[in-house]
Amino acid sequence: MQTKLTQLLRIEHPVLQGGMAWIADAALAAAVSEAGGLGIISAMNAGADWVRGEIVKCRALTDKPFGVNVMLMSPHVEEVAAMLAEEKVPVVTTGAGSPGRYIKIWKEAGIKVLPVVASTAFAKLAERAGADAVIAEGCESGGHIGELTTMALVPQVVDAVNIPVVAAGGIADGRGLAAALALGACGVQMGTRFLVAKECRVSSEYKKKVLEAKDISTIVTGRRLGHPVRAIKTAYTARYAKAEADENFSAEALEELGVGSLRRAVEAGDAEEGCFLAGQIAGMVSREETAAEIVQDVVRGAEEVLEKLGKLR
Amino acid sequence: MQTKLTQLLRIEHPVLQGGMAWIADAALAAAVSEAGGLGIISAMNAGADWVRGEIVKCRALTDKPFGVNVMLMSPHVEEVAAMLAEEKVPVVTTGAGSPGRYIKIWKEAGIKVLPVVASTAFAKLAERAGADAVIAEGCESGGHIGELTTMALVPQVVDAVNIPVVAAGGIADGRGLAAALALGACGVQMGTRFLVAKECRVSSEYKKKVLEAKDISTIVTGRRLGHPVRAIKTAYTARYAKAEADENFSAEALEELGVGSLRRAVEAGDAEEGCFLAGQIAGMVSREETAAEIVQDVVRGAEEVLEKLGKLR
Repeated sequence: MQTKLTQLLRIEHPVLQGGMAWIADAALAAAVSEAGGLGIISAMNAGADWVRGEIVKCRALTDKPFGVNVMLMSPHVEEVAAMLAEEKVPVVTTGAGSPGRYIKIWKEAGIKVLPVVASTAFAKLAERAGADAVIAEGCESGGHIGELTTMALVPQVVDAVNIPVVAAGGIADGRGLAAALALGACGVQMGTRFLVAKECRVSSEYKKKVLEAKDISTIVTGRRLGHPVRAIKTAYTARYAKAEADENFSAEALEELGVGSLRRAVEAGDAEEGCFLAGQIAGMVSREETAAEIVQDVVRGAEEVLEKLGKLR
Repeated sequence: MQTKLTQLLRIEHPVLQGGMAWIADAALAAAVSEAGGLGIISAMNAGADWVRGEIVKCRALTDKPFGVNVMLMSPHVEEVAAMLAEEKVPVVTTGAGSPGRYIKIWKEAGIKVLPVVASTAFAKLAERAGADAVIAEGCESGGHIGELTTMALVPQVVDAVNIPVVAAGGIADGRGLAAALALGACGVQMGTRFLVAKECRVSSEYKKKVLEAKDISTIVTGRRLGHPVRAIKTAYTARYAKAEADENFSAEALEELGVGSLRRAVEAGDAEEGCFLAGQIAGMVSREETAAEIVQDVVRGAEEVLEKLGKLR
């Protein structure tokens, strides 16, 4: 299935793996890239040396294109941005801000730059700054979210910019990829489904929570601090939501309650104190598979859907 | 474009017009049905006589199938439900609860029953109660909303039930219809786009607000009372949101603030005190057209999308 995205990134299938902080490492990214999609390493809050180490590991595992997700609010963003240009990584995706100031050095290094956007205004800003494409992410996704849903956001972003648009949020199978293409996107980014990839090193408790989730198993917290985040409902999210609704609970105390909670879920599988980020389609994710099986299933599923829809005409 | 929905409801196009309270009257419903979609009259909180009057008017304007949306929390729901069975209206859609207790008399009268659902649990409940299909409505829609988005909800409902599924929320054009079909739905329900139909009698101020809306122009209020509602951001919604966040503002006072606000938007076009319900795709709705033009544009647009996607295989 060739689209503008596969052409732009020189990949086989229009499927990106989200650069999930604390989760998306070289092993997962390389597995997705080897499968013909685009694996993405998360640079999260890490320093340039750690990220470079993951890039080196990824290159040892695959010679196919991969990406690095840069969290623009990271304290190490300057050094990481410079290192990525040095390393000439094939693709950079960015989150939590506008990547304008780094696009020039990245483009000069031959890097394709794909900012994640949650509104048409940010998409236009990214296009003006020189982005090669944008990833329009709906609020059904896991982790940090915006306000618009994928169904509403994607066509509006497609109409707002002339660069390719990747859809993210609420996509877990071939139906989602086909729907994204129908909305005018040229590919998808998936996070939640890759959480249960065999090559994904999150705790078994994390995978269990995703596999057991139903449609209504996620909750959004963090609106009071201006950083809404979607996670699987647990005793922890219930405590957080209660604290958030309590005016006597200060913003500082709330901030403190969040610190380390994702890492506790990912590394320790701490069912009590961990925050298990996941999207609304966790309810559709029902088995652990290799990254290659996931990519194949999504692409084959989309082809089946398109064949079926072709008969409607 | 024939689908299970067009067969079930004996309509030409798989496009339903949402039964919007204070808005969806006989004139709008008849225009949509005449165009080959399914127009739906809102019974809202009205008594049986008023609703019967609209049915009579609708039948005078079209001999094609149409529907009535029953708000199950209406104080007049018993008499309205009985009257609909007497009138043998072709289709009933229901909102705000489970229609279980009325399905028997409606089915005996030959009425097709389509509950609006916001989760897989409610969809299964509706199926067990005898519903002919369900309308899975995502939270990007205008008016009363659930938590799941259309992209996440529709495939999960499709997997949960064996009856046909109609997608609603975030759909404004042929791309949305094509995407809904890709997700496994057999048709769509649209509200916001029909707000600006020439046959829709909302105030010119209401239409202006929809036509001028951008992607980020809507807001959700009412979560504190347990009845979240999406509307276009105005001075009124800002006041409501502020009151809602203020613990000293009682639930009763909040309730009072909401009373009559939709009607003031619909009838008087009161930009100060009106509540202009609309979905996130208001940003895509840019011109007033006849209902027939809208239905044609959506269906033709979807056919174009399917043709284009067919070439990807």
